[in-house]
Amino acid sequence: MAQRKVGIKDIAARAGVSISTVSHVINGTAPISDEVRDRVIRVARDVGYLDRRKNKGTIASLRKILLAIPQDAMPENDVNLVSWTILSTLMQESESRGIRIVVHEIDHADAFRQVPEAARAVDADGIILVNDDRPALLKEICNSKIPAVLINGEDPEMHINSVTPGNRFAAQKATQRLIELGHRRIIHLTWQGRRTVDRRLDGFHDAFQDNGLDIDGAITLIAEGYEPRHAEAAVRDWLARHPDLDGVTAIFCAADNLAFGAMKALKSAGLTVPDDVSVMGFDGVGLGELHVPALSTVIVPLDEFGSAALELLESSANADSKKRAARRLELGCEVVTRASVGPPPR
Amino acid sequence: MAQRKVGIKDIAARAGVSISTVSHVINGTAPISDEVRDRVIRVARDVGYLDRRKNKGTIASLRKILLAIPQDAMPENDVNLVSWTILSTLMQESESRGIRIVVHEIDHADAFRQVPEAARAVDADGIILVNDDRPALLKEICNSKIPAVLINGEDPEMHINSVTPGNRFAAQKATQRLIELGHRRIIHLTWQGRRTVDRRLDGFHDAFQDNGLDIDGAITLIAEGYEPRHAEAAVRDWLARHPDLDGVTAIFCAADNLAFGAMKALKSAGLTVPDDVSVMGFDGVGLGELHVPALSTVIVPLDEFGSAALELLESSANADSKKRAARRLELGCEVVTRASVGPPPR
Repeated sequence: MAQRKVGIKDIAARAGVSISTVSHVINGTAPISDEVRDRVIRVARDVGYLDRRKNKGTIASLRKILLAIPQDAMPENDVNLVSWTILSTLMQESESRGIRIVVHEIDHADAFRQVPEAARAVDADGIILVNDDRPALLKEICNSKIPAVLINGEDPEMHINSVTPGNRFAAQKATQRLIELGHRRIIHLTWQGRRTVDRRLDGFHDAFQDNGLDIDGAITLIAEGYEPRHAEAAVRDWLARHPDLDGVTAIFCAADNLAFGAMKALKSAGLTVPDDVSVMGFDGVGLGELHVPALSTVIVPLDEFGSAALELLESSANADSKKRAARRLELGCEVVTRASVGPPPR
Repeated sequence: MAQRKVGIKDIAARAGVSISTVSHVINGTAPISDEVRDRVIRVARDVGYLDRRKNKGTIASLRKILLAIPQDAMPENDVNLVSWTILSTLMQESESRGIRIVVHEIDHADAFRQVPEAARAVDADGIILVNDDRPALLKEICNSKIPAVLINGEDPEMHINSVTPGNRFAAQKATQRLIELGHRRIIHLTWQGRRTVDRRLDGFHDAFQDNGLDIDGAITLIAEGYEPRHAEAAVRDWLARHPDLDGVTAIFCAADNLAFGAMKALKSAGLTVPDDVSVMGFDGVGLGELHVPALSTVIVPLDEFGSAALELLESSANADSKKRAARRLELGCEVVTRASVGPPPR
């Protein structure tokens, strides 16, 4: 049933109008009363007809895409659930549009031109690059003139399209939530090497500034990587140096994985979440809901990255790329407050 | 001739293939050799057929749009050439898609719900809001559930779609250009009250940091507004306080209008551009090329804002908005170096 496509006949039946009325509304070929038109459009939208027809309207200019990903983002790597979620919806979207995906694992020892060369070797119409925004690599891809989109990365030169979460605003909102609860000394636990992740630090600072708070209360703690064990080590070390917590009452982590490690270190030190320290994550990979206590986090719309990337790639492939500005797209995120966050201890 | 639409018959003739071959390539209905396919796609793209067909594929779910603009961005206001350029291409794009635009001038004395109320009064399917991102206004629009896009503004709550220039990266690139020429003490001349303009200050600072330069060399000068006269007054006052220029060798302005005023003030003080002071603008409204000396600036793709906004609005109107994350779109910009910028005086 999920597979059967709803057509205008079904829309007519559901909206209680004739088939020709549906056709006129959808194609704008005759004036229809607002009341009827709204009903038809609503039904067409609800059954997914509008989205589907829009996809059908796009042209088969994308037949094959090279998906270039670093080893640590490969689907079999279970540490990186964020990449896994993004990639699986990208595969589904591509399949439903009849686009073939050829996976290319980026070899960090190879020359940067390996990616455009691999795209040419399989005769790909476009490149989707995940998590890797090293400037020299982006330059080679740009020079190749092959349409490209970067997922979870940024091009400061503004030549390559990109899709990322709205990192800065989302981090600002999450920090704002903690500040509203009364927290004034907060650790931002993050890792280095990704510009997109640095934006979360920007947003963390924005929230302190917007509220006129002493910026000394915004403490940055750098873990050696984004895995739980890195966060655990970083928080353990920090606690050893600050047994009295130094006034800190909350930790805002730049990834859910870091939050899991941080909570482990807090527990080992005999501290309770959220009574002693509140913990907020970032990305909402799903497991946070099952954690005890349930993790408060920023929900990133990971399932929309694939379709957003394909849309950008299609527009680039259809347009004369010399004339069209590259687009940097940020997807809106929501903050959910669960049990791991509460007011600071009195 | 420009009005006549090129069809698949013309594409077949230009590509030297049969009409049915063109049809198979465009619709992906039969396998065609790569060489022929590439030729057909290239011709179809060059004549604008791909873009046009994509637009045709979208549905008439947008029939009428409320265009809400503050008085100072209205077309008859010749001070704001940036808004004028954006609006004129938006009107053209809407007309070519059969969308009616109803203009609503935002009255700052009225309640914030005036905008959604005006949209409902004319039965608009969407709202395009220009230059006004006051949080209370955005909240009212968000609560109304009417699909909306903000042009030249930002929604930190990430509930409303937006289109802006890539302000931060563009300002970083422009400043980088000055640094590469040898400038080490640079004034960033800007004005207050717009978050989007604050991003240019962020990028200005980024460039100093990326180059490991003393941040004391990054001087911020605030004009009282974005008109040339405001810049002229700000630079004149600054020169009165710093007759020896305090080591400053370049001014990077957050708008071309500011750059024109700055150059006037420099000239009045007997200083030469670029021999004494280099001047860089931001936006590329066209008149900069005619200025003597010609203005170096950041070229913002102003003619792409209209179509980008309509695309975002269409996607929002087609999708179930409760499920779809709002999108924040930044358009890539390029830096052009003209006569107003040179190396610092020895």
